[in-house]
Amino acid sequence: MLRRRDFLAAAAATGVAAATGRSHAAQTDAVPAQPKPKAVLKLSAQEGGIPGESLKAKLDTMAGWGFDGIEFGGQAALRRVKEIQSALDGHDVKISALCGGVEGALIADDPAAREKAMHSAKELLTAAGEVGAVGLIIVPAFHRDNMMPHQAARELLTGFARWDARKDKPDPTPVLLELAEHAVKAGTRILLEPLNRQECYFLRTVADGASICKDLDHPGLAVMGDFWHMTWEETSDLGAFITGGGYLHHVHIASRKRRKTPGEDGAADNYVEGFKGLKWIGYQDFVSFECGAVGAREVVMPAAVKLLRAQWEQA
Amino acid sequence: MLRRRDFLAAAAATGVAAATGRSHAAQTDAVPAQPKPKAVLKLSAQEGGIPGESLKAKLDTMAGWGFDGIEFGGQAALRRVKEIQSALDGHDVKISALCGGVEGALIADDPAAREKAMHSAKELLTAAGEVGAVGLIIVPAFHRDNMMPHQAARELLTGFARWDARKDKPDPTPVLLELAEHAVKAGTRILLEPLNRQECYFLRTVADGASICKDLDHPGLAVMGDFWHMTWEETSDLGAFITGGGYLHHVHIASRKRRKTPGEDGAADNYVEGFKGLKWIGYQDFVSFECGAVGAREVVMPAAVKLLRAQWEQA
Repeated sequence: MLRRRDFLAAAAATGVAAATGRSHAAQTDAVPAQPKPKAVLKLSAQEGGIPGESLKAKLDTMAGWGFDGIEFGGQAALRRVKEIQSALDGHDVKISALCGGVEGALIADDPAAREKAMHSAKELLTAAGEVGAVGLIIVPAFHRDNMMPHQAARELLTGFARWDARKDKPDPTPVLLELAEHAVKAGTRILLEPLNRQECYFLRTVADGASICKDLDHPGLAVMGDFWHMTWEETSDLGAFITGGGYLHHVHIASRKRRKTPGEDGAADNYVEGFKGLKWIGYQDFVSFECGAVGAREVVMPAAVKLLRAQWEQA
Repeated sequence: MLRRRDFLAAAAATGVAAATGRSHAAQTDAVPAQPKPKAVLKLSAQEGGIPGESLKAKLDTMAGWGFDGIEFGGQAALRRVKEIQSALDGHDVKISALCGGVEGALIADDPAAREKAMHSAKELLTAAGEVGAVGLIIVPAFHRDNMMPHQAARELLTGFARWDARKDKPDPTPVLLELAEHAVKAGTRILLEPLNRQECYFLRTVADGASICKDLDHPGLAVMGDFWHMTWEETSDLGAFITGGGYLHHVHIASRKRRKTPGEDGAADNYVEGFKGLKWIGYQDFVSFECGAVGAREVVMPAAVKLLRAQWEQA
C-alpha cells in the first residue's frame, strides 16, 4: 500500500513515528523487531460515579483506591480541557483515554452524518491530545446509526484494496488515514472499539480491529479490547490480545455477567487468560473500568483493584 | 441460544457429541475443561500434482515423501467415493479433508443459488463422511457469488440474534446449524475457510470463523486456517490459532509470497509462530499443502516436509 510508505516518510520527517516507539513487524516475522518491554497493569476508571466535589478531589479518591488512571467522556473533556489539564498536573493519577463522543457516525449511510463525524472526531482528537490521553475511543457505527453497506464501509475506512483493484483511478484518502494523521499531529491516536452484537454489527472482534490497523499501519490508529464485549464475541481472551499485539493500546473491563464492578459477578470475573495475553504483548497502557456498581463504590472499587492485581500476578 | 441446548440434548441421545470429545468451555473459563492432548504435526497435500498412475501409486509417492495425509477436491471425491475408500484402506496415508466443490453459494443474494448450495453441500458432506474426511471445506461466498447484505448473511448462517431480538417470532433454523447436523449424521464436519480479500469479503479472519462456530457451538461446525490467506489478513499466526482453539480442525499451508511449496519463498516461509499456536491448542488434525510448485515436486515436496518438521520442533 503506497499510502503507508508515503506516511512513513512524512512521519520520519516530523519524528512522530519514531517517538511512538511502535514496531510494525511484517506478519511473517517470527521474532519481534525489538524486545518487548515487561508489561504493566495500570488500572483506570471512568470519571462518572467517582465521589468528590472537584476533579482534584476525585483524583485523590481514585489514588486512595489504588487506581493509576482516569478516563473521561469525549464531550465532557472537550468542554473541560483546562480544568482537566490543571487537575492532572503533577497528580499521581494520569489520564488514560477519552471515551467516545463523536457526533454522527464515520460509516453512516447518510453523507451528512459522515461529514459531521469527521469534524467531530477531529475536534475530539485535538482535545485528546491537549489532555494527554492515550487515545480517543471511536466506534465506527452503532446499530442506531443506519450503517452503509459493510464492504463499502470498510473501503471508506481503510481503502481495503484488492491487490489488482483501482489500478486506473486514484485511491481516495481512507477516512481512518485522514483521522490517524490528525491524531498524530495532535499527539494522540484513534482507539477503535469492537463492541458486542447488542450495540453494533460492523466491528465486533479485536482481530478485525487489528486487521483494520494492519491495513493502514499508522501510529495514529490503534485498537482496544473490552472484556465485557469480548465475553460475548471472542472465543479466547488470550488469542484476542495476542492478535491485538502492538496495535492494542487500551482495554476496558467490567464484571462478566452484568457489566458491574469486576468481582461483583463472582467466579465469572476471571481475567487471567486476558492478562496472560497482555503480558505476552508487553502491554504498557491502561485497563480501565467501564461498568456500573451493585455495592457501594468505596467498597467494591478498591476490592476490584485488589482482585485484578492478584489475577495479574497469577497470569 | 436455545438451539444449542436443543442440539446438545439431541446429540447426547445419539452419543454423537460425546464421541467427538470436544470441550466448549465458556469463554470466561480460565482453565480448559479437559487437559489438552499433545499436538501432532500431520502433513497432507492435495491430490493434484502428485505423480502416479493410480490413486494407490500417488499415495505411495506421498508416503515416500513423508506425508501423512491426502486432500481431495470435493467434486472429485463425490464421483470417486469407492475408489478413494479402496485406495485408502489400510494405507499409511490417510484422508485429511475435502476441499470445496459446493455449487451456488450459501449466502448468495439469489435464493436459487442458496438453495442449490444447500443441496450441494449436503451431498458433499455425505461423501466426506463416506471417505472418512476430517471435514468439508466450505466458503460461504466468493467475490463472484454476488453476496447478500453482510448482516443478513450472518443472520442466515447462524441466527446471530441480538439478545432481545426476535422475541415474537420463531427463529428459523440457521443454515449452518442445518448443515452441521447433516455433517454429524454423515460422520464429518463443516470446515469454514477464511480467505484473503482477493477471493472473498465475508469471512477473512480465523477469529471471525471461530466466532461463528461459537455462536452455534455444534460439533459439526468448525473453522480452518490457511497460512496463505493469513499472511495477508491476520496480524498474528499465534493469536489466530489460539483464537481458533477447539474449533480449529484443518490448516492449509503454502509459501508466503507466491503460494508455492513451503520453502520456495525462502526466509518468508516461516510458520513457527503458527506452529506455536497449534501446539498451544493441542492440535490433532492435518496441515495440508494447497499450493503450486516452482521446482520439481519430487524435490520441493520432500524438502518442504523436512523444513516444516524442523520448524515444528523449533515452535
